[in-house]
Amino acid sequence: MEDNGAVTTLRLALAQVNCRVGDLGGNAAMVLETAHAAATAGADLLAFPELTITGYPPEDLVLRPGFRAASQAALEKLAADLAAAGLGELAVVVGYVDDDGLPRNAAAFVHRGAVLARYFKQHLPNYGVFDERRYFIPGDTFVAVRHKGVDIALTICEDVWQDGGPFAVAGAVGVDLVVNINGSPYERNKDDLRLPLLQGRAAEAGAAIAYVNTVGGQDELVFDGDSMVVARDGAVLLRAPQFVEDVYYLDLEVPERLPVHLAAPATVVERVTTEVAAVALTAPALPAVHADRMPDEAEVWGALVVGLRDYVTKNGFRSVVLGMSGGIDSAVVAALAADAIGGANVHGISLPSAYSSDHSRSDAELLAERIGAHYREVPIAPMVDAFVDSLGLTGLAEENVQARVRGTTLMALSNAEGHLVLATGNKSELAVGYSTIYGDAVGGFAPIKDVPKTLVWQLARWRNADAASRGELPPIPENSISKPPSAELRPGQLDTDSLPDYELLDAVLERYVDRDQGVAEIVAAGFDADTVARLARLVDGAEWKRRQYPPGPKISFKAFGKDRRLPITSAWREGLR
Amino acid sequence: MEDNGAVTTLRLALAQVNCRVGDLGGNAAMVLETAHAAATAGADLLAFPELTITGYPPEDLVLRPGFRAASQAALEKLAADLAAAGLGELAVVVGYVDDDGLPRNAAAFVHRGAVLARYFKQHLPNYGVFDERRYFIPGDTFVAVRHKGVDIALTICEDVWQDGGPFAVAGAVGVDLVVNINGSPYERNKDDLRLPLLQGRAAEAGAAIAYVNTVGGQDELVFDGDSMVVARDGAVLLRAPQFVEDVYYLDLEVPERLPVHLAAPATVVERVTTEVAAVALTAPALPAVHADRMPDEAEVWGALVVGLRDYVTKNGFRSVVLGMSGGIDSAVVAALAADAIGGANVHGISLPSAYSSDHSRSDAELLAERIGAHYREVPIAPMVDAFVDSLGLTGLAEENVQARVRGTTLMALSNAEGHLVLATGNKSELAVGYSTIYGDAVGGFAPIKDVPKTLVWQLARWRNADAASRGELPPIPENSISKPPSAELRPGQLDTDSLPDYELLDAVLERYVDRDQGVAEIVAAGFDADTVARLARLVDGAEWKRRQYPPGPKISFKAFGKDRRLPITSAWREGLR
Repeated sequence: MEDNGAVTTLRLALAQVNCRVGDLGGNAAMVLETAHAAATAGADLLAFPELTITGYPPEDLVLRPGFRAASQAALEKLAADLAAAGLGELAVVVGYVDDDGLPRNAAAFVHRGAVLARYFKQHLPNYGVFDERRYFIPGDTFVAVRHKGVDIALTICEDVWQDGGPFAVAGAVGVDLVVNINGSPYERNKDDLRLPLLQGRAAEAGAAIAYVNTVGGQDELVFDGDSMVVARDGAVLLRAPQFVEDVYYLDLEVPERLPVHLAAPATVVERVTTEVAAVALTAPALPAVHADRMPDEAEVWGALVVGLRDYVTKNGFRSVVLGMSGGIDSAVVAALAADAIGGANVHGISLPSAYSSDHSRSDAELLAERIGAHYREVPIAPMVDAFVDSLGLTGLAEENVQARVRGTTLMALSNAEGHLVLATGNKSELAVGYSTIYGDAVGGFAPIKDVPKTLVWQLARWRNADAASRGELPPIPENSISKPPSAELRPGQLDTDSLPDYELLDAVLERYVDRDQGVAEIVAAGFDADTVARLARLVDGAEWKRRQYPPGPKISFKAFGKDRRLPITSAWREGLR
Repeated sequence: MEDNGAVTTLRLALAQVNCRVGDLGGNAAMVLETAHAAATAGADLLAFPELTITGYPPEDLVLRPGFRAASQAALEKLAADLAAAGLGELAVVVGYVDDDGLPRNAAAFVHRGAVLARYFKQHLPNYGVFDERRYFIPGDTFVAVRHKGVDIALTICEDVWQDGGPFAVAGAVGVDLVVNINGSPYERNKDDLRLPLLQGRAAEAGAAIAYVNTVGGQDELVFDGDSMVVARDGAVLLRAPQFVEDVYYLDLEVPERLPVHLAAPATVVERVTTEVAAVALTAPALPAVHADRMPDEAEVWGALVVGLRDYVTKNGFRSVVLGMSGGIDSAVVAALAADAIGGANVHGISLPSAYSSDHSRSDAELLAERIGAHYREVPIAPMVDAFVDSLGLTGLAEENVQARVRGTTLMALSNAEGHLVLATGNKSELAVGYSTIYGDAVGGFAPIKDVPKTLVWQLARWRNADAASRGELPPIPENSISKPPSAELRPGQLDTDSLPDYELLDAVLERYVDRDQGVAEIVAAGFDADTVARLARLVDGAEWKRRQYPPGPKISFKAFGKDRRLPITSAWREGLR
């Protein structure tokens, strides 16, 4: 430090918490409670995720002046409440919507009952699932607070993903620590990107980075935490486990700062101090957590469980109902639901038709038994026959009526018994429109809508093996995994009658949907031209169905939902041009 | 003009055309055909709407490199094709996606087979239904082309709605005409805003403005045209009728330009010339169109008809099917459909239950007869009884099964006969969740989803009176307009059993939904606190249903759809705080 030359230690607490969108009072109460625990643990600085007070993302609630004013007021009250609770000496970084004239995505540095500094997010993501330019004005001021002799800069989420901005400024003006508060949604393999990114920014800033991210589910998004602290030299000082809500502590040794040789930045720099002097750490040193990275399937399974659990509980449901066909999709959804809210809260309904195989029922019943779910059978023939007789249906119309009778039955049980209906469709089906709207597509939530069919199988095998490795009975019947997939809407029907095999299908879809490659590019990569062109047409033609599909957790780079906004009415046809 | 001092006349052609999203070849062919007509009419300059080549809005198609490259290639080919067709002397302003390194919302000035200048939109709207920051990089260069001695600046849509930018620059550097090409969606009363806005910009630019807008429907959006030319002094020189696809001509007399006294702007200014000298107009003068403004109901009816017609036809349907209950909502939707695609292509299905009144059927049949629609009855009792008997349903579950049997029946007829299903719900119902998901909410398109119930009645009365004024039979049975609204899901049920009367309901909803007012603000305006709080809770609680509702044409300031993006999972409760 410039003013004492000595090595200082700051006890840092990262609050990897689950905020609730719109619950300003509840979130503030959670901050107070967490601050109490952190103060008891001797922390000097406690950092919360992005938009702690409002939850993330609050979407168009931010457009309401009353909501913005409530966020601002909740922050001011929280500062006073912290001091009143005897927690004023703990420095707290908390996210909120600032509305002092212009709406801002803001971080407050709270100390001794006052908001000592406010930082406004400079890089507002407006791609993928993000619409932050819709809501906020970007900030242009670099903010650093000196606390216990440590210079601490504030940044928010996207600031770390974009070049230019506060990390470069930190390097130019000199600070010891950059706090980066996040609402960074889970994506497969994203945790592999975060660490090298933070290491690069730490070098750029010439300072340690404390990255704190939220956990939990919010509509289509799942937040995985993965909070960490990276030293100036890139060393990982702390890394929290994914998906686990907890406070993680680190005794950060702040080394003597390197002299700053860079030109002063053009940006406005605001520096304040808490006027708390550096003191040597007297408490016994706290060991920091270093969580192992999860295997890919465990991570995806965790994301799906958290997304489902929070959708159910945050929306006030206690139980779910789903159609259990004996197939792999409904088996995986049922197992996820049992892991999320307990098998006793899962109601599996077998809805056999004339075309259902015997194993459909026995596999479904076995699954229910293994996961501890309720199980019953409702044969659909009486309802299907009533439609077929009244309307004289054949072919596709008759097939679809079977699916819609099932959907109506599940909704009736939901209305009568209060369960949330889960839709069991996977991403591959949803992509090519291989589902019946208002039939198997009914539901309040669709847990595997972003999971390609091949990954559904992979997850099922992993879940069973994971159970076996713990000496538990594998939940998913082997037969559900191994049998050839079929919608069972006509005799002997198999998915492969209408679709290529799923390995090929998923490989093409990953390019066309997730990576926005054109048909020509996919064919150039070695895929059959007719197959690719046909699949592209199927995907384009199913947009109207997807628009009415329930939400489900995003786990891929590009999920169907607010991540992918294509016109329904479109004459664009991908070709070999 | 600086170089000849004389008053010049430019024959201007505004192409108020209906572009098709994604149909790059078709849109380019339409440009060629229109250019032929304009050249034959002796035009000097022909301007098309925003993103002519790709259609507007292309949404996430712009994220595909192949789509952007195809747009760029289609423009280059169009320039060559125009010259090859002997139309090279006509100057053409056409919108396209430029992809020379960065994706741009661009306007090209095409002359003699070459793209003489490219202008990139500077103000990218990112509010309401717009996401242009998601797709495009803003331009920073002012572009003016001298053609026949007239200095013509290029601008695009939002550039005219925001302060700062090309109109101010035009005033500083001096031009004669600013061409503004638009994809400006219809909203009630928006045409009242456009003229004063353009008059202000004309004064700022010291130049006439030629505003050309597209017409037609695209998913949730309807474009009303309303193209116009405003003189430097604010005089309206031409105003096209709304919703009519045509080319509108004006012989624009270009007065001697005022001396420019302003400081040179900081922006980059690009000036090019076609090297075509000013010549006196020799053709006989063309009278310009001055269309009368439409009455409010006629304008809304026109928007709904165009939105429905284009959704049906652009998606390849030739007929529609809907449930006709005898009530006002389905009557208005059926009348709109008959106006949009002809009564012979409308299939009205009466779906009576045990609780349906006799007049339900007779009113529906009378309507079908008056609009020339097909009509049939499908009693739902056999299907409903099968569900009730199998599942033992009562109360809400039984009510909803009736609605879902109707939805499944309509979808079965759609599957069997190829009609598009129309959902008949209005905005008031959709707001408070007074509809059955997968029941009366089924459909590919929802023509009146942005029309509040009170406006539904108003439109019905207007449509009947308009028919009468032309000596035609009013299409909508008086009984459908005058009877108290009922869902007829249980004996004697009336909407007012669960909801306040619609005058009050719509007044509150207009504030809460369209204007984002909080409960406190609405109560302060004189509404009953309990009623407002209850309605706000109903609106918030129905978000999950709206998310699965079909698209329908936006006519209000804020429609349910991409205009309003609220979380489903939200603990925010509006209160009197």
